[in-house]
Amino acid sequence: MKKIILLIMGIIVIVGSAGAQQHNHSHSHGKVQAKGYAAMDDKGLLIPYEFERRAVGGNDLLVELEYCGICHSDVHDVFNDWGISSYPNIPGHEMIGKVVETGKNVTLFKVGDHVGLGAVVISCGECEKCKAGEEQYCTNPQTDEHGNMVSVAGYSNKTVVNEHFAIRIPDGAPLEKLGPIMCAGITVYSPLKALNIKQGDKLAVAGFGGLGHLAVQYAKAFGADVTVFDLTEDKRALAAELGAERYINVNNPTEMDNLGGSFDYIISTISSHYDVNQYLGMLKTHGEMVIVGLPARSEAPSVNILEMPFGTKISKWLMGGIPQTQEVMDFSVRNGIYPMVEVIPVQQVNEAIKNVKEGKVHFRYVIDLKTIK
Amino acid sequence: MKKIILLIMGIIVIVGSAGAQQHNHSHSHGKVQAKGYAAMDDKGLLIPYEFERRAVGGNDLLVELEYCGICHSDVHDVFNDWGISSYPNIPGHEMIGKVVETGKNVTLFKVGDHVGLGAVVISCGECEKCKAGEEQYCTNPQTDEHGNMVSVAGYSNKTVVNEHFAIRIPDGAPLEKLGPIMCAGITVYSPLKALNIKQGDKLAVAGFGGLGHLAVQYAKAFGADVTVFDLTEDKRALAAELGAERYINVNNPTEMDNLGGSFDYIISTISSHYDVNQYLGMLKTHGEMVIVGLPARSEAPSVNILEMPFGTKISKWLMGGIPQTQEVMDFSVRNGIYPMVEVIPVQQVNEAIKNVKEGKVHFRYVIDLKTIK
Repeated sequence: MKKIILLIMGIIVIVGSAGAQQHNHSHSHGKVQAKGYAAMDDKGLLIPYEFERRAVGGNDLLVELEYCGICHSDVHDVFNDWGISSYPNIPGHEMIGKVVETGKNVTLFKVGDHVGLGAVVISCGECEKCKAGEEQYCTNPQTDEHGNMVSVAGYSNKTVVNEHFAIRIPDGAPLEKLGPIMCAGITVYSPLKALNIKQGDKLAVAGFGGLGHLAVQYAKAFGADVTVFDLTEDKRALAAELGAERYINVNNPTEMDNLGGSFDYIISTISSHYDVNQYLGMLKTHGEMVIVGLPARSEAPSVNILEMPFGTKISKWLMGGIPQTQEVMDFSVRNGIYPMVEVIPVQQVNEAIKNVKEGKVHFRYVIDLKTIK
Repeated sequence: MKKIILLIMGIIVIVGSAGAQQHNHSHSHGKVQAKGYAAMDDKGLLIPYEFERRAVGGNDLLVELEYCGICHSDVHDVFNDWGISSYPNIPGHEMIGKVVETGKNVTLFKVGDHVGLGAVVISCGECEKCKAGEEQYCTNPQTDEHGNMVSVAGYSNKTVVNEHFAIRIPDGAPLEKLGPIMCAGITVYSPLKALNIKQGDKLAVAGFGGLGHLAVQYAKAFGADVTVFDLTEDKRALAAELGAERYINVNNPTEMDNLGGSFDYIISTISSHYDVNQYLGMLKTHGEMVIVGLPARSEAPSVNILEMPFGTKISKWLMGGIPQTQEVMDFSVRNGIYPMVEVIPVQQVNEAIKNVKEGKVHFRYVIDLKTIK
């Protein structure tokens, strides 16, 4: 499977058999045999699929995967909603696992450590962005031949990764809840940190799903006054429970009245079509709207520049780098900020993906990867 | 003419005849009779037009207008390109004139002083924005009944204005060149200051007209490495003359190659339709594109959010407040930064507007208002 093989190339030096001889596992003289779930085409149906990971190189960890969150991007990925997917397609980039083998040069981790792995598992290591710890913006991106960076094949039982890209899991943390922090968590934490949220800042979280319900919790931890926007009535109670001051049901027109100029910041986690200009109109002067949710190509929203209010700003963020991903993991565990998860066996993955696609999940499915046979 | 009468209402206390009795002018017991040029409908043809300004109040200056720049917004305004114009429509908001009378409470100016007047000649004075010297974002905007803030009737021979909104003209400055600084100048200076341009920052100026050719000069004064984008070959030499390092003729496809990720900042002064996403693709990660040019409603550009590069930002700016307008006036005169102007008698205004509309002006027409009979 070219996709996976190429995905693991790049700056990562594969030491090969010389390094691998030190290891005990039966696979240690070569490639790692892995089992996962893959979509074979854009119908998006996931089926059991066996494939190879690279051999464990000198700087690599062999990780036995335990949990993987189902991100909305996985759905877009398997159905080729962005027009950039390749097949067979093994989705998943919110992984938690245990180190079961270490390459000979590994210094940061030891066998038995728990690690988190996200969408960024490869980068050049030499460009300005990599050196600044913003590997997600690496200017020499190492991708597979289809340019697909999202699919790092987390719906599987094993992976091999350079230790640089592994996030240390604090002792005693609830492993089944941590996967989504590797993507949903860092994706909202990073812009909230960059906005330098101060006590009392008025912040709106548009879209109260996997990303949104973490954004509310981080924003509250930073002291913001939080308003949540979503489309249904049934999330209202949970928004309050997580500390949001206000909940706006967008389908209830009277609730949308008099919101012009209300917010210092809006973070949009919406992953379907919506009216961006309507939200921009709710910003105060010098306010900023941050886009982190990504709708399908067919539903891509647009901003009318003429109607964009003067003195407003719109920005688009992509996750965070490795140092900040470690930061959000530590921050989350220290403050007890976790996603609400529903742990499922891998055999229910297709039903789960259907529910995510239809907006029926509260809030994050996590696959128990130990159920892969 | 309701439009003008309502435009001058607001926080400005009109002291009326008690204050006016101190003045020598024949009009001092009442309204000021003014002559200007107005469009009577959206055909945009300007004809001589007599109208009243308010009586000179205690905090007011009576200003004999000498010059007024023709801003691209004036063209949009008289042709109702934004769908918000009212008629009769006297355009003009880049005024230079001489104080010929002062209200009894005036302390900042005396008869004989030269002043600049821009689009912001009224505001509540009490909101957070006004107190911060950002009167252009006043949250209690005092507009005429059509919401038209742009038209402050500068194509005329006299105006009455609260001294707060008058900009002091440094002695000996070339009066005929200063009008455009009141709008075009502050419109590009303000965002360039906010971006905190540093020596060597890569800046693109998209659109090399009235705003753009001032943006190049300010950006050079701040130390930026400047690239100019425009549609024709005939502005190339002037861009170099004003210090731009590079000139890109957008209609020459090979010049557009390999510009991805090139710029820290892009300031767009373009006032017709264009591909915003194409420019966003030229930003570096964490780069920002600032929109200051405003196309007609029928040509409004839009940003596709899905195609917007990760890590980029787009913002929209509206001029600057009164303190910063004084700052840009002083900065311009001190550094010899002036627009290139062609001074015309008011009788040529319709031809000039036609040329602006067709993009045939290099770079700013300024009307000699002393030619109003």
